[in-house]
Amino acid sequence: MAKIGVVYYSRSGNTEKMAKEVFEGVKSEGVEVELRKVEETQPEDLLNWDGIIIGSPCYYGLPAAPIKELFDRSVKYHGSLEGKVGGAFSSSANIGGGNETTILSILQMMLIHGMVVKGTSTGDHYGPVSIGEPGKGVESQCRALGKRIAKLVKRMPLC
Amino acid sequence: MAKIGVVYYSRSGNTEKMAKEVFEGVKSEGVEVELRKVEETQPEDLLNWDGIIIGSPCYYGLPAAPIKELFDRSVKYHGSLEGKVGGAFSSSANIGGGNETTILSILQMMLIHGMVVKGTSTGDHYGPVSIGEPGKGVESQCRALGKRIAKLVKRMPLC
Amino acid sequence: MAKIGVVYYSRSGNTEKMAKEVFEGVKSEGVEVELRKVEETQPEDLLNWDGIIIGSPCYYGLPAAPIKELFDRSVKYHGSLEGKVGGAFSSSANIGGGNETTILSILQMMLIHGMVVKGTSTGDHYGPVSIGEPGKGVESQCRALGKRIAKLVKRMPLC
Amino acid sequence: MAKIGVVYYSRSGNTEKMAKEVFEGVKSEGVEVELRKVEETQPEDLLNWDGIIIGSPCYYGLPAAPIKELFDRSVKYHGSLEGKVGGAFSSSANIGGGNETTILSILQMMLIHGMVVKGTSTGDHYGPVSIGEPGKGVESQCRALGKRIAKLVKRMPLC
Repeated sequence: MAKIGVVYYSRSGNTEKMAKEVFEGVKSEGVEVELRKVEETQPEDLLNWDGIIIGSPCYYGLPAAPIKELFDRSVKYHGSLEGKVGGAFSSSANIGGGNETTILSILQMMLIHGMVVKGTSTGDHYGPVSIGEPGKGVESQCRALGKRIAKLVKRMPLC
Repeated sequence: MAKIGVVYYSRSGNTEKMAKEVFEGVKSEGVEVELRKVEETQPEDLLNWDGIIIGSPCYYGLPAAPIKELFDRSVKYHGSLEGKVGGAFSSSANIGGGNETTILSILQMMLIHGMVVKGTSTGDHYGPVSIGEPGKGVESQCRALGKRIAKLVKRMPLC
Repeated sequence: MAKIGVVYYSRSGNTEKMAKEVFEGVKSEGVEVELRKVEETQPEDLLNWDGIIIGSPCYYGLPAAPIKELFDRSVKYHGSLEGKVGGAFSSSANIGGGNETTILSILQMMLIHGMVVKGTSTGDHYGPVSIGEPGKGVESQCRALGKRIAKLVKRMPLC
Repeated sequence: MAKIGVVYYSRSGNTEKMAKEVFEGVKSEGVEVELRKVEETQPEDLLNWDGIIIGSPCYYGLPAAPIKELFDRSVKYHGSLEGKVGGAFSSSANIGGGNETTILSILQMMLIHGMVVKGTSTGDHYGPVSIGEPGKGVESQCRALGKRIAKLVKRMPLC
């Protein structure tokens, strides 16, 4: 049965709130899902999931160092994530503060692992962005991300 | 039946050579495929394809203006490409000359259309890059891109 | 005497409003400045300016095709813009709609020309972003961009 | 008197070799320069330098986690790097392996600090890239980067 991991780093709690909405979105599609702080996540965990969704605050336009470190350590399984499905989300203090580049950086790391990623033609195209605390609109975009990745995982069983 | 379009812009002929290899890669997977110069491609054509692969020389680190113009004009069908599969490739004079950013720019446009894109854990991760005239290695990466997108289209019929 | 060109593409008028504020920002620093629609700008014009500021709506996460075309045509002067100062701004319908990638794409084209670009540690770091019609905050960021580029041009006479 | 820091992370030795060439390039311009492993660099050091040049291997298309961590920790001095000059370089196993995105990620972090960055119209436009061990051509591009940043620091004393 398909399983998705939602991994995040959060200090202010904003990215964590987003992660919980993404988690609910995945669950609502009937797909098994685990919610994990990055500090509690090992590269091995990535192997167990058919879909991986990563959330990070925007630190200098890129994901926080602990997210980066998880990917650096995942090199020992390079090749094994090929064909898995990925998504990303980000929180930040400012519009134009580096949110999109944070999300795209995560998607790039996933592409280098040979993963499949998907944008959306409505809302935040690369992935949900919260400016400060997530409001209703952001929450709804986060749930939509969870649903989108879950649907993609169901449509595309790993061969 | 699934169909893929390979659209390219080429002046020196290098990107065209790459496009022909991508075309052969798709065909070898038994998926119907059309090869088109961007000058002969209309936004309407994008609607007919389940997968869209775009190739461009690297002009100032981005796709050539005619490729950009095709996407700008495609806005009248915004939403209709949701869930289609995409890929990209690029040729350039120099390593570090803007090839990766050219490919990623095309993938970003596809994500904004809600499309699905995939990297690869081996070779040129975001998409094939040729420095000058494509040699055997580049040709093989281009065929691999065609196969990869064709396989993804077959695995993931549009719902 | 130093001179700066502000070049923009605008259909809704939002980017044009931003461009006028950038123009005022440059002028307030006592630097000569020209405001130009991209349709009225030739690659030759770029040679006459010590600083070049480009504004575009976000079309699929990149500058509009006419901006791209100006850069493609500027290749005949490749090398001659080396050391000039550049900046960029963008307008869009949505947060997360591709604004940052639009601005960064313009900055990348400038870097490939060998130009000097500068971010800012406050506000929109890569360059001003307007979501819909520019409000007071965006106007003030646009004037700040104009001042920033003008100051840089004054500090750094072309050698 | 102007001073530049060259900070790098290296495991295979390739990025270190590049760093030494960058160091020589700066020195040849008569500018004081320090060469530092990132493990021996503190955020405080960034305050002492008028120019900062960062080198990293390409790990999943982004700088290695220790480089990212240095920038994350530099947030306590946010605003104090405004107007300093920056540059970046990268090494990788493959063309198309994420080199350009590694360099651009570093430049983005610098822009968010309000720093000034410069491309070059010849060679690797965003910054030098080595595919595997640096050969003569890469060495020469690294020295050119050092010279370029040194010249910019000399032309543009911090006000």
